[in-house]
Amino acid sequence: MKRIYLDHIAGTPLHPDVVDAMLPYLKEKFGNPQSLHSIGQEALEAIEESRDKVARLINAESADILFVSSGSEANNFALKGLAFAHQSRGKHIILSSIEHQSILHSAKYLEKFGFRFSHIPVDEFGLVDPEDMRKAITDETILVSILLANGEVGTIEPIGEIANVCRDKDILFHTDAVDAVGNISVDVRALGVDALSLAGNQFYGPKGSAALYVKKGRRILPFIDGGIQESGRRAGTEDVPAIVGLGKAAEIALQEMESRMERMKTLRNKLMKQLPQAVEHVFLTGHPERRLPHHASFCVEYVEGEAMLLNLDLKGISASSGSACTSRALKASHVLLAMGIDHALAQGSLVFGLIDRTNSEDIDYLLEVFPPIIERLRKMSPLYTQYLEEKEK
Amino acid sequence: MKRIYLDHIAGTPLHPDVVDAMLPYLKEKFGNPQSLHSIGQEALEAIEESRDKVARLINAESADILFVSSGSEANNFALKGLAFAHQSRGKHIILSSIEHQSILHSAKYLEKFGFRFSHIPVDEFGLVDPEDMRKAITDETILVSILLANGEVGTIEPIGEIANVCRDKDILFHTDAVDAVGNISVDVRALGVDALSLAGNQFYGPKGSAALYVKKGRRILPFIDGGIQESGRRAGTEDVPAIVGLGKAAEIALQEMESRMERMKTLRNKLMKQLPQAVEHVFLTGHPERRLPHHASFCVEYVEGEAMLLNLDLKGISASSGSACTSRALKASHVLLAMGIDHALAQGSLVFGLIDRTNSEDIDYLLEVFPPIIERLRKMSPLYTQYLEEKEK
Repeated sequence: MKRIYLDHIAGTPLHPDVVDAMLPYLKEKFGNPQSLHSIGQEALEAIEESRDKVARLINAESADILFVSSGSEANNFALKGLAFAHQSRGKHIILSSIEHQSILHSAKYLEKFGFRFSHIPVDEFGLVDPEDMRKAITDETILVSILLANGEVGTIEPIGEIANVCRDKDILFHTDAVDAVGNISVDVRALGVDALSLAGNQFYGPKGSAALYVKKGRRILPFIDGGIQESGRRAGTEDVPAIVGLGKAAEIALQEMESRMERMKTLRNKLMKQLPQAVEHVFLTGHPERRLPHHASFCVEYVEGEAMLLNLDLKGISASSGSACTSRALKASHVLLAMGIDHALAQGSLVFGLIDRTNSEDIDYLLEVFPPIIERLRKMSPLYTQYLEEKEK
Repeated sequence: MKRIYLDHIAGTPLHPDVVDAMLPYLKEKFGNPQSLHSIGQEALEAIEESRDKVARLINAESADILFVSSGSEANNFALKGLAFAHQSRGKHIILSSIEHQSILHSAKYLEKFGFRFSHIPVDEFGLVDPEDMRKAITDETILVSILLANGEVGTIEPIGEIANVCRDKDILFHTDAVDAVGNISVDVRALGVDALSLAGNQFYGPKGSAALYVKKGRRILPFIDGGIQESGRRAGTEDVPAIVGLGKAAEIALQEMESRMERMKTLRNKLMKQLPQAVEHVFLTGHPERRLPHHASFCVEYVEGEAMLLNLDLKGISASSGSACTSRALKASHVLLAMGIDHALAQGSLVFGLIDRTNSEDIDYLLEVFPPIIERLRKMSPLYTQYLEEKEK
């Protein structure tokens, strides 16, 4: 059976050149970068070269890139590391209400240590209003963390504006850019952020590869304590193959991002327009324009997300109903609820994320198989029967 | 040039079968284990199979194995996670004075939160006396963490006895077994430990692969907060290729450990006996018998460790002078100092760790090139000149 992968949010396949770049480091170049001998030295050179490549992707200084094992680790590191390092100035932190679980749960952790959090709202498109953020600031505010783009609804936040407000008030600003970096142009200098999380498996790099950017001069407490790796800020033997893969993925992204983006956007626009035409009661979620170019997300009324996913899977299509990090919890997404979507409709969440190899036929195939799936599922739905009965009256 | 890798402590090369097992997960099987579709499902099955294999290696229940990204993360997770989860019972923790930096620095971190640490001494062989540990216990003691084997001197600690004492007193016991698991037989049930750290790159598995064993029923606070991965105890997209590699390495270790161990021990014993015979003023460090079978470590008087390493490297031999996690810090090892070795002698530390492919010719070659290297280096040493002059008198 044809397999069409449209679950970018859960991670992308690796670019073949990324795998090729990693292989020598799984084989003959197995050294530990901290070893003083030449086998260690070649590993050290490889990770420093990757650091340069990742830095170039986001227009950062190499020394400001810290390699970690996942976007979630980067977010934990940022929130906990910055909070603990700056707590003498205050213990208030501002988040949006649509952050990733790794930010929200790090916040819950920090609450145990006396930190207080304000969760600012988003509008129906998932957009944060910088004015709301400004109003939430108190004398105790030390840190603001707002995501750059939301993986569940695709919306891109006005990070530059938010960072401006923070800089004016001398408040640290972190952005979770895991869903954005490598897919859209991200420039830490232009944005003016103090810290930024990114992950390789969102842009054709390997799992286990991620980084936290921390602007020079910004104090951060190490998250994994121990050896002197990553300038003493992140202990543990460096995962050289993953780091090399991340570097290669960054290099490719820098070269190919624009053309990828254009191509995916065209296909995505077709999907975004035609899916709600092909099936009744299908609503776009997130912002219609300010969104990730590969991203199309919907709520399908009178159908449960999980049932759609399994039926699509039977037709060879991989999609998701939200963040993979919570998919098996099968709860309505906090992101959709924060956007004012009601609980029942949020259950019908469906997220498509195109990847580099997605083509026009894939989208046509999806548009073809989707209506009969929904029709069949709705026939089994008591809510849909009720809706039809009420419509009849 | 012939390359002889004798730096096991910094990590082993990957077993070819481990690489082969990982490759499909870097290529077509790229799914996220949390995705509900079939590409996710096959990744989920792969990591659960690896969990079983890792569990079998240490005679644990699969559900008690949590995958993490490094031995250092496992140690941070254990110490911080257990300390914070049980602090209502007390805030005193006991360590040995020769723990890995990831334990010692996690302790420093915890001190900021009011935890108090006792560091119990070791004898000249690096052995902890369980009686010292018993004496250090107070009513406030909630946790003891003592390593199973020390990577710098090879000494294997009496973990079973220590765990017994802890169990009697209802105190949690964690052991950092990173240098031991996969190289010697480790059985969490026989040892009676509550938590144990292990890392794949110490037994022919990949970097970025490690696990924390936490016995069922022992509460631990998550270290990386976020999604529901690893039963909600360790967030972040699972590094499937690394986890699969760890599982394969565990499977191979279970089959081959005994024969590997025997072969390496024979070669190691030769090295341990003949190196001090080949060169004057070379002393074995660590215990002569109770030590890792692949491990030989020495202090070489009147020579600096780094100079030896670089000269050995020029001859194609990779070795280390201690933990790779601190090698570039070039400080005398806290392990050697804790064993009563004086500062000057500790600077001449030299650690050899044999690997599966090490053969008799490799050891012969080392024994051949080592004496002239030391002779040359000592000629440049003012301390050695002084020693010779005093000897003349």
